[in-house]
Amino acid sequence: MNRKQLIDAVKVQMPAARWEHTLGVMETAVLLARSYHGDADKAHLAAVLHDVCKYWPVKDQGNIIRDHGLPADLLEYDKELWHAHAGAFIAQRDYGVNDEEVLDAIRYHTTGRKPMTQLEKIVCLADYIEPGRDFPGVHKIREIAEYSIEKALLMAFDGTIIFLLEKGKKVYPLTIEARNGLVDEVKSVG
Amino acid sequence: MNRKQLIDAVKVQMPAARWEHTLGVMETAVLLARSYHGDADKAHLAAVLHDVCKYWPVKDQGNIIRDHGLPADLLEYDKELWHAHAGAFIAQRDYGVNDEEVLDAIRYHTTGRKPMTQLEKIVCLADYIEPGRDFPGVHKIREIAEYSIEKALLMAFDGTIIFLLEKGKKVYPLTIEARNGLVDEVKSVG
Repeated sequence: MNRKQLIDAVKVQMPAARWEHTLGVMETAVLLARSYHGDADKAHLAAVLHDVCKYWPVKDQGNIIRDHGLPADLLEYDKELWHAHAGAFIAQRDYGVNDEEVLDAIRYHTTGRKPMTQLEKIVCLADYIEPGRDFPGVHKIREIAEYSIEKALLMAFDGTIIFLLEKGKKVYPLTIEARNGLVDEVKSVG
Repeated sequence: MNRKQLIDAVKVQMPAARWEHTLGVMETAVLLARSYHGDADKAHLAAVLHDVCKYWPVKDQGNIIRDHGLPADLLEYDKELWHAHAGAFIAQRDYGVNDEEVLDAIRYHTTGRKPMTQLEKIVCLADYIEPGRDFPGVHKIREIAEYSIEKALLMAFDGTIIFLLEKGKKVYPLTIEARNGLVDEVKSVG
């Protein structure tokens, strides 16, 4: 399956509006990879697949996690988190992606982890700031992304955590660890 | 050492203004224990000792953690967290407190943990809302404490977490777990 065939296959897994989002993440991930000495091809591939099963029934996403030994604690947290781990599994099983770096970038694009690879940061940040995103503060994060991927991602995670607190939703512990890791990284480079 | 002697011994471990805070925590912890079917005597004892070494040199607090096998990961987080674990150690070694419930209430009064005992919730919340506290939102937390210790403590932790995010400080993972645990408890009682 070449990249064109892959794109056509993934496109039909989601509503048209969400495919627009994926196109934005593809574009932004490639730009970030070029700016931050990342691998633009891997960033593109991870971006194509990052939401591959986000619009599948959540029951199916949960079953993938349960049936294939993915982190079961995810099931106690927001369903919004499930598609990332399930998506990495599907990317490998159904689309033949075996590059662990790419799979990790799909797997951790929502929760983050500590530490994050450059490719994970690129895909995670692209998902926050692709041109179709419009939430309070997104312009500021885009500005910061021009000079520090870590500072931009830290601000993005902080926004997510505050959103969850305000909604009375649980915060996945790995997200706090990802964010704490970025605090250390930002400090160490000054 | 009777309670009067204990109080006199702890009082001189801190500046007068901080002793006022401890008096407030003692009073509030006893009131909360009476309201929520807790053990008022244990709440009083834990409150007396909760800040016993908070005004010791932080180097000494760090050494207690390092030298006595207390959780070493604390040393990578805000120094404000150290006195709680160090304090539980000192309460046992220097003041002869052997009641594990009381020691845990001292140990987890700053970070929280998941799940928290009733006594831990009482001392932790008393530390937030004693009459000398004056921070934005404290009145609201005191109001909620009249009918739900879990909802009040959840609001208190949320405030702490947002404060840390805004200051660019790391959040101790156990605090997020404590807060997530309270989200579940609040939901389960409706």
